[in-house]
Amino acid sequence: MAPWRRTRLVLAARRQMTMMGRGPICQEGIMWSRLLSFVVLAFCLMAAHLPASATIWDSVPDEQLKALELSRDATPKELFDSLSKRYRAELTKGKHAKFWEPIPMDMYLAPTLFYKAPDLDMQVTREQCASCHESVTHGWVASWEKSVHANLDKIRALPADDVRAYKKDIITEVEANLHSQGLLEQGAQLKDVGCADCHLGIGAKAGNHKDLHLPDRTVCGSCHLRQFAEAESERDTLTWPQKQWDKGHPSHTVDYMANVETATWAALQQREVAASCTMCHTNQTKCDNCHTRHEFSTVEARKPEACATCHNGVDHNEFEQFMLSKHGTKYQTRGDSWDWNARLADQNTKGGFTGPTCQGCHFEFNGQFTHNTVRKVRWGFLPFQNIADNLDDPWFQDRKTAWIGTCSQCHSPRFAETYLTMMDNGIKEGTKLVEETRKVVQKLYDDKLLVGQKTNRPALPAPEQDEPGGFFSLFFAQKNQTTLVDRTFAEMWEQHVARYMKGLEHVNPGGWTYSHGWSDLIKDQAIINEQDTLLREKAQLEQRVQKLEGKAGASAKLSSLDNRKPQNLLVSLGADPLYAGGTLAFLGGGLLLGGLAGRRRNRRGDTGDTPQ
Amino acid sequence: MAPWRRTRLVLAARRQMTMMGRGPICQEGIMWSRLLSFVVLAFCLMAAHLPASATIWDSVPDEQLKALELSRDATPKELFDSLSKRYRAELTKGKHAKFWEPIPMDMYLAPTLFYKAPDLDMQVTREQCASCHESVTHGWVASWEKSVHANLDKIRALPADDVRAYKKDIITEVEANLHSQGLLEQGAQLKDVGCADCHLGIGAKAGNHKDLHLPDRTVCGSCHLRQFAEAESERDTLTWPQKQWDKGHPSHTVDYMANVETATWAALQQREVAASCTMCHTNQTKCDNCHTRHEFSTVEARKPEACATCHNGVDHNEFEQFMLSKHGTKYQTRGDSWDWNARLADQNTKGGFTGPTCQGCHFEFNGQFTHNTVRKVRWGFLPFQNIADNLDDPWFQDRKTAWIGTCSQCHSPRFAETYLTMMDNGIKEGTKLVEETRKVVQKLYDDKLLVGQKTNRPALPAPEQDEPGGFFSLFFAQKNQTTLVDRTFAEMWEQHVARYMKGLEHVNPGGWTYSHGWSDLIKDQAIINEQDTLLREKAQLEQRVQKLEGKAGASAKLSSLDNRKPQNLLVSLGADPLYAGGTLAFLGGGLLLGGLAGRRRNRRGDTGDTPQ
Amino acid sequence: MAPWRRTRLVLAARRQMTMMGRGPICQEGIMWSRLLSFVVLAFCLMAAHLPASATIWDSVPDEQLKALELSRDATPKELFDSLSKRYRAELTKGKHAKFWEPIPMDMYLAPTLFYKAPDLDMQVTREQCASCHESVTHGWVASWEKSVHANLDKIRALPADDVRAYKKDIITEVEANLHSQGLLEQGAQLKDVGCADCHLGIGAKAGNHKDLHLPDRTVCGSCHLRQFAEAESERDTLTWPQKQWDKGHPSHTVDYMANVETATWAALQQREVAASCTMCHTNQTKCDNCHTRHEFSTVEARKPEACATCHNGVDHNEFEQFMLSKHGTKYQTRGDSWDWNARLADQNTKGGFTGPTCQGCHFEFNGQFTHNTVRKVRWGFLPFQNIADNLDDPWFQDRKTAWIGTCSQCHSPRFAETYLTMMDNGIKEGTKLVEETRKVVQKLYDDKLLVGQKTNRPALPAPEQDEPGGFFSLFFAQKNQTTLVDRTFAEMWEQHVARYMKGLEHVNPGGWTYSHGWSDLIKDQAIINEQDTLLREKAQLEQRVQKLEGKAGASAKLSSLDNRKPQNLLVSLGADPLYAGGTLAFLGGGLLLGGLAGRRRNRRGDTGDTPQ
Repeated sequence: MAPWRRTRLVLAARRQMTMMGRGPICQEGIMWSRLLSFVVLAFCLMAAHLPASATIWDSVPDEQLKALELSRDATPKELFDSLSKRYRAELTKGKHAKFWEPIPMDMYLAPTLFYKAPDLDMQVTREQCASCHESVTHGWVASWEKSVHANLDKIRALPADDVRAYKKDIITEVEANLHSQGLLEQGAQLKDVGCADCHLGIGAKAGNHKDLHLPDRTVCGSCHLRQFAEAESERDTLTWPQKQWDKGHPSHTVDYMANVETATWAALQQREVAASCTMCHTNQTKCDNCHTRHEFSTVEARKPEACATCHNGVDHNEFEQFMLSKHGTKYQTRGDSWDWNARLADQNTKGGFTGPTCQGCHFEFNGQFTHNTVRKVRWGFLPFQNIADNLDDPWFQDRKTAWIGTCSQCHSPRFAETYLTMMDNGIKEGTKLVEETRKVVQKLYDDKLLVGQKTNRPALPAPEQDEPGGFFSLFFAQKNQTTLVDRTFAEMWEQHVARYMKGLEHVNPGGWTYSHGWSDLIKDQAIINEQDTLLREKAQLEQRVQKLEGKAGASAKLSSLDNRKPQNLLVSLGADPLYAGGTLAFLGGGLLLGGLAGRRRNRRGDTGDTPQ
Repeated sequence: MAPWRRTRLVLAARRQMTMMGRGPICQEGIMWSRLLSFVVLAFCLMAAHLPASATIWDSVPDEQLKALELSRDATPKELFDSLSKRYRAELTKGKHAKFWEPIPMDMYLAPTLFYKAPDLDMQVTREQCASCHESVTHGWVASWEKSVHANLDKIRALPADDVRAYKKDIITEVEANLHSQGLLEQGAQLKDVGCADCHLGIGAKAGNHKDLHLPDRTVCGSCHLRQFAEAESERDTLTWPQKQWDKGHPSHTVDYMANVETATWAALQQREVAASCTMCHTNQTKCDNCHTRHEFSTVEARKPEACATCHNGVDHNEFEQFMLSKHGTKYQTRGDSWDWNARLADQNTKGGFTGPTCQGCHFEFNGQFTHNTVRKVRWGFLPFQNIADNLDDPWFQDRKTAWIGTCSQCHSPRFAETYLTMMDNGIKEGTKLVEETRKVVQKLYDDKLLVGQKTNRPALPAPEQDEPGGFFSLFFAQKNQTTLVDRTFAEMWEQHVARYMKGLEHVNPGGWTYSHGWSDLIKDQAIINEQDTLLREKAQLEQRVQKLEGKAGASAKLSSLDNRKPQNLLVSLGADPLYAGGTLAFLGGGLLLGGLAGRRRNRRGDTGDTPQ
Repeated sequence: MAPWRRTRLVLAARRQMTMMGRGPICQEGIMWSRLLSFVVLAFCLMAAHLPASATIWDSVPDEQLKALELSRDATPKELFDSLSKRYRAELTKGKHAKFWEPIPMDMYLAPTLFYKAPDLDMQVTREQCASCHESVTHGWVASWEKSVHANLDKIRALPADDVRAYKKDIITEVEANLHSQGLLEQGAQLKDVGCADCHLGIGAKAGNHKDLHLPDRTVCGSCHLRQFAEAESERDTLTWPQKQWDKGHPSHTVDYMANVETATWAALQQREVAASCTMCHTNQTKCDNCHTRHEFSTVEARKPEACATCHNGVDHNEFEQFMLSKHGTKYQTRGDSWDWNARLADQNTKGGFTGPTCQGCHFEFNGQFTHNTVRKVRWGFLPFQNIADNLDDPWFQDRKTAWIGTCSQCHSPRFAETYLTMMDNGIKEGTKLVEETRKVVQKLYDDKLLVGQKTNRPALPAPEQDEPGGFFSLFFAQKNQTTLVDRTFAEMWEQHVARYMKGLEHVNPGGWTYSHGWSDLIKDQAIINEQDTLLREKAQLEQRVQKLEGKAGASAKLSSLDNRKPQNLLVSLGADPLYAGGTLAFLGGGLLLGGLAGRRRNRRGDTGDTPQ
């Protein structure tokens, strides 16, 4: 299907959707028949990316070809060369490079940058790898033996009605990619994909053990070029209209850079602690976060648990939210009767799926399933105020329309629109709580009233810098670097409001109001408002005592001078700092402070999590 | 089996059980042979509800028939009419109606009250629904195609020894219900159950798309009358002897009312936050919380995860407690070898089950499995003091006896009784901690010593009202509406003690002492006792400074008058409020304050959770 | 394989491993070829414990035979008699016996000590058990009927290539054990293992119901002698070189004693709360924590969930860590395609496993799979400083080498070594945070500055004793027994650092830095450092007010004397206690306080958790 046609459909959808708004029930005035016809058309698209001969697949978006300065008639070799050149150029130690040194483990996490082969000078043939390693590390050999890589002919022999038959086309596609790159003789077929192909070089017959490499994305992408291009296109399709995030962020394809360019990460002296962040931020560096070596099972990669190692926990608990939603319980109760060998596009038909998965919703875009998981991203990783303020921008509206298409696989478009609008409104309410509280925190910091702020708050290790409730509060606490107020607010803006959002996004009731979400945010607000009152009352009492001491004469003054430092902070408070929390209404100026964390986060360019 | 016979058995059981008590080991003096014979008799009952011709099923309890003023000889039509009339009368916006307006999403949550069909004026035939929606929303059509509804003849063709053969009787039963209501011609069989039957009207051949409705419980109940009556009987069988809860509360069948009549819910300005509560409190309004549309899989509804979306989290973590108990790990390790097509009554025999599920224990009552899940409820949703004080009441004893019968499917009756007695004693200990701490909190509130209490604690939005540590503390925190003491105590009485109880009830060790439960309660108590000391020391120090200022003369007074407000609270404290926590022993009066939260909760009539 | 040969291999391995260290990348200088050959040799061992005729199995370690003063030529009877004699001698109520009384439930938890048969005087034959209990407690009969115990001939009939065929050898082995003990006629075969065998006596034809017993480990061990000996050998192989723990601790085989000898447990007045601890600490007393009665399914015992009931939660969340690691997601996504009937040694071959389980790694030692799960234990249950300080000791190095062997089933030895070294370094960093914070807490306690410390901190129930942030802080909070500082530090050293360690050990990124682990420890440190500042500032302000009151004359003194008690504590503070937290650098003396919790924990001899 020609690109212009999809564009027209999206525009039509946008028009439809902007008519819906958030009116009271029964005043919708929407032409449902028009919407209906739109959806019917939209789903005609689900036939998806036909690998048109001699052109780049239509699952590779225009934005990427433009960025690479390639036409859609480019050869696989041209596409691969262009992609891998950019890939290597953008995978570096980053702007904070001077602040940290890799530890040995890093060579396995970012092999392109750090891998060194074992110092074993031994000439080996292609056949010797598996036979020798069967006794050394039999587990990985056994896994490979179960993989498609070891059994290409078994795939080729599948009958056409086998749910895995689509893999035959993939083999053909891979062979075409290799032909184009001159890595497989024209007309020749792949026999198998063995250790040597990935660790020595595609088609290698022999080599020296000390020349082994650990595959990065380009090694997988040489064969799986379409998937490589789709995944890499996350850099190109995520261009935030109001610069809420840097281009391509947050996405899998830049997640390693997001990691190393985070000041907090670079500042951590305990590199084993920093390594934990890196463990997940390695989709940019390799492919086996989802496609576990050496079985590379597609069945595994299609199941929600494949996302779980990274997408769980304090601020990106998508996995838990999904599992406790009705969507997730459907998976847990009925998933064993679904055929996981069906590819994503076939799951609801050949696969017999009666519920959604992470992959089924997030890999889909306008009826097509690709490795670009961020084409419908709207709220991203955190609900920034400058996202909340711009949801009417067509960029956001188009993406909402795309989501309605996704949900409409199983729900009525009206239901989907109604839910997504409620979700948006809910997220805005959470964001509002955070911004209200940010003002209280900032005022305490500006008034220098945080515990120990003037006497016991040492500078953070470079390149990290102080700010009230900054991201660093989760990782540094020497002396009073992190106070209760800092920590509480860091959890509020970086964790709790994120979980609140993700609860709404994944339709898990307990996830956004009660067990987590709103209730957590209210607790944060309560703690910070209480600290605001307490710290100001404390300052005032000290002031009163100081005044009394002043009256008590010179001898008293002398004895208390040395330990009266904390009171000096009152000088900066002006007339009456008491109950500033109660007078916030006079502050005015709207969200002057609101974008702070956002900007910080943005500056850090953090995270490669797939949002929404 | 005649009702009198079951009654006699229950009475016999009660007599047996009251003899057991909680004696030291080896002094039991129980006639185990008598108990044994009781259990044998009890399990004769497991043949369960025979749908006696021309009478209402014996799984429909006497209490319900009495409440509906029906005899057991009533026709299905009479039962349905009576049930659905009451159902609609009791499903309203509630006494707080004026405080809130529905948002669009509410029409899907309480369709009886709010649903409006899409504005699509289009005449459709019965056949057109699926064929058109196959292209619009293929997911729901595919789910329906896998359902029994779409395949009645497939069920009719099952051999008698198929574990699903019982469904043939259900089809016959449904047809009899429809015959009685004049919705199916006498002698005619149902062909299938399609979109039109539920969304336009049973048996409808055609209709207009704008007349669609969203099924509530009465729509499902028209066919599934027995299940509807059983479920609705929760209103009738749960009559608390000391009015611990309103009649029928807490249960699934009144859970929507429990929601809308909760002051906190009605007071929430952020309706998207309130909607999260509603998401689960909709068993009263529809049936698909457990029987997910449109597959309506009984296999799904029988698995523990079917309960998980609602029964998880901070105060009703039954799902987590079960999954980590030995019961749950048995399910997780062996459940894949059990035949989930077996109905509950057949699971331990035809199904090959070797462990229990939520459904296997909670749907059972005296050997019968019905949709009334609350006939063994004793502790309900929260361990109120007035439950702890009345466990010797025959009402509670009978229900304990019924539980022993349930456990005795797999455990010896003595083991069951021993465990349940330990559970009761344990829950009492937790309740005691809460009541001790409630006194400390109440005294701080009465002494107006909570942070900001006199200066910075604005009124809550109506209809919510202030109280120390009220339920609202989980959802409101403007200024100092919620202090650390309030919030901690709200978590203690509403969440932690509930989890403590549920840990004991579901035999999850980490759930009641270490990871959760006792350890959480102790932390709450520690925090509140510390605040008690700190706030009283703070008040006293301020008092001393004030006294010094009084001595310091008129000029000092003048300058500090404006910011001395917080000290005024001391006026109400009388002579010496210091260390009131330490003098609680003198308070006397027993549990004068103890019932507070309970009464509040009771007033709110909250929750539709199935306890125990 | 002769023991000397294994010993030589272990020595060789130790030599290899000590050469690896933690060098920067590329300066390893390791002879990888030598390592390779070592690994090859090591895995020759995987053929495992051949039950050599007329000798004790080689899976029974030398340490155990030595402790029992048996030669490897001992008969099964001699081994059983010796083992069961020691077993009974060491299973007592412990040194705190006078402080607690069992509750009825305890008879099911420690049957050897407390079980009393029901008072039912009834002669029964072997056959009557199941037939009568089919109607009383049909669940347990149904479970037994599915067990191997009820179907020995079915096992005997298995073809040699059946993955369960190894069970034939086990039956033969059991029969040999019984022959040796005179419990089965020479040459006779077991027909089945019925109720009577375990509850009345092996081979019993009849008996009286009032003579029933509840099996302890010796009852199972009479038949399953090898497994009994292996499990009991945990007492013998875990001899900590620097006495970090008592001999055999922490392990399953002494977990009941660890429980009853914990002062906190014995001090708990609420025995139902203490019972929760006991629920898991019963591997010493019986075998069905893992082998759930009465199916005794090996499939169940091999699955990770079999460990979950005990190994989850606040301080030993191995289950959660595993499940969220890539190891665990592999299990969750692919485990349904693995053959769980394969025994551990066959899983990666016959079983088709492509990922690890709890059992696959923790039951393995130098290629052999046994019921001694602690032969590779290094960090144990908590990262004590005196473990961190001694990792270079050959005892720890040998065990690291053994772990490298385990990981090398699927990973390269270099990868394994690199990860394990990072893990060690990471754990040390966490331990450092704890020790830094311990000093702050101890100083506050020594200065008597904890809230209510001098006025409102009553003694704990015996045998528990006060200490800052002791284990008791999780369970006792009368008045100010537990302050925020105590509680926070108790969670830090007993829970959060344990989870941090377990996150690293189980390769779950979110488990050691972000969701849990480092981030938790930093929060603890932040809270305690803030309290340090606040409590010292508070003391100072009170001191200043007191000084002012002294100047204000005699009348003022009189009125405030009665409520000035808290200030007296300042007497003990010397010149200027303010900001002691800021002057900790001057404290010196290294880790004088560091071993406190460790020693306490050690004194308590706590826990039977399998670490690492």
